[in-house]
Amino acid sequence: MLKNSRNLRIEWGDCDPAGIVFFPRYFAMFDASTTALFERALGMTKFEFIKHYDFVGYPVVDTRARFLVPTRFGDDVVIETTISAIKRSSFSLEHRLLKNGELAVEGFETRVWVARDRDDPDKIKAKPIPHAVTDRLSRG
Amino acid sequence: MLKNSRNLRIEWGDCDPAGIVFFPRYFAMFDASTTALFERALGMTKFEFIKHYDFVGYPVVDTRARFLVPTRFGDDVVIETTISAIKRSSFSLEHRLLKNGELAVEGFETRVWVARDRDDPDKIKAKPIPHAVTDRLSRG
Amino acid sequence: MLKNSRNLRIEWGDCDPAGIVFFPRYFAMFDASTTALFERALGMTKFEFIKHYDFVGYPVVDTRARFLVPTRFGDDVVIETTISAIKRSSFSLEHRLLKNGELAVEGFETRVWVARDRDDPDKIKAKPIPHAVTDRLSRG
Amino acid sequence: MLKNSRNLRIEWGDCDPAGIVFFPRYFAMFDASTTALFERALGMTKFEFIKHYDFVGYPVVDTRARFLVPTRFGDDVVIETTISAIKRSSFSLEHRLLKNGELAVEGFETRVWVARDRDDPDKIKAKPIPHAVTDRLSRG
Repeated sequence: MLKNSRNLRIEWGDCDPAGIVFFPRYFAMFDASTTALFERALGMTKFEFIKHYDFVGYPVVDTRARFLVPTRFGDDVVIETTISAIKRSSFSLEHRLLKNGELAVEGFETRVWVARDRDDPDKIKAKPIPHAVTDRLSRG
Repeated sequence: MLKNSRNLRIEWGDCDPAGIVFFPRYFAMFDASTTALFERALGMTKFEFIKHYDFVGYPVVDTRARFLVPTRFGDDVVIETTISAIKRSSFSLEHRLLKNGELAVEGFETRVWVARDRDDPDKIKAKPIPHAVTDRLSRG
Repeated sequence: MLKNSRNLRIEWGDCDPAGIVFFPRYFAMFDASTTALFERALGMTKFEFIKHYDFVGYPVVDTRARFLVPTRFGDDVVIETTISAIKRSSFSLEHRLLKNGELAVEGFETRVWVARDRDDPDKIKAKPIPHAVTDRLSRG
Repeated sequence: MLKNSRNLRIEWGDCDPAGIVFFPRYFAMFDASTTALFERALGMTKFEFIKHYDFVGYPVVDTRARFLVPTRFGDDVVIETTISAIKRSSFSLEHRLLKNGELAVEGFETRVWVARDRDDPDKIKAKPIPHAVTDRLSRG
């Protein structure tokens, strides 16, 4: 399965009055890591591949995270992201955020491939992931 | 165990290009719901009770959420928060976000009561939850 | 010109390691205040009035803010918002954030009414504000 | 005066339902650019230089921004940051966010060097900027 890794600087604005990352920010970091993995797999930016594959996004339906070591502004961290499962219209990812090589946060996400509902464009609806996409995500 | 409920308006700035809440924002909403429950239990604001009980905060160590129904800007939602477990230095909560009475998101958090480490004030360390706090959180 | 006022609780997640509001958050608060004023003027949620008037939003083109008194988590503040000018396709607002009746932050925004560009739907384009809207915003 | 430049990817989570950056996010980007400039000038992370110079931060007291060209997720932008004035306890910066070499957003900030008030540690108070800092910020 596809893997990707990216470096990240923890910023002052990511942190709360305890001086450590406000935990919802980790999910935003993981979201950007998911995008980075897709962009690498598909060779397009998210803006481009959403148009190319005519869908709306891949919202998270289930997520879990464990916070093992606090991180704070000025920390340089690495996020390693792996596709862990691909189904017909959903897929799962794992994120490992490392600080000085040590696992600081781990996150798990299941996401669904969605498009506008033709009967009600205000709504979104699960849709099969295109084969071209599953093929590329399945590569090592 | 203690319960609390609060009303919330989903804002434009909470939403992403798909027009629905960017999921990390739900965790920020749940964080504020946890604070609201504590403030109700302790009769003080978080700023006040952090000073009163001489600690730094209750960072999340484990969280999970399931997203069942999308919400979008202009939606008025309710978040019901319940303490589900209290241990020596940690506690767990459940959040249910309802839209038109329907369960839209459910979240689970385990948090740890922490204080500055006396040996290294840059670090934080788990500490027993004061009895006065566990007493009030345990009330129905 | 139309005025609106709303109460707000400053949350832990709005604050930075100095323990005070991370200033970009004030702009998000002002954005929600602008929406609240429009919703009151038009009697619809933003989701509804964007569809009703067939536009995309009113992005900010110019903003200024002065931060006079810091606010921190647990503070209950009031934001007073006033329309200060309405032109053909733009309008200006002033926000006053009060803490214990004292002016803590003041903000100024100029926004443009935009719709999708028909020639290139990836782009947005200024459009005259509908008369029904300017009428309602001009009321005292 | 000191200048610094950094590259940035606009993320999905930075954008609103109109598909463009939610404007408060630009201020968070500028805040990180200010930090990057200081870190370069002082050769320390913000976490380190706050301890080294025994202060709390440099909160913004006045800011203005003009938004000329919208940016959206997938855009790679450059932020150029320059110190424009240094006074006894305050300093000003200018940020220019460029998209494909074109000026998309410009921001102006005045910030104050603050420390804990010795008489009331819950409060912060302006303090002269150390000479070692003004020296390094003044270099070209």
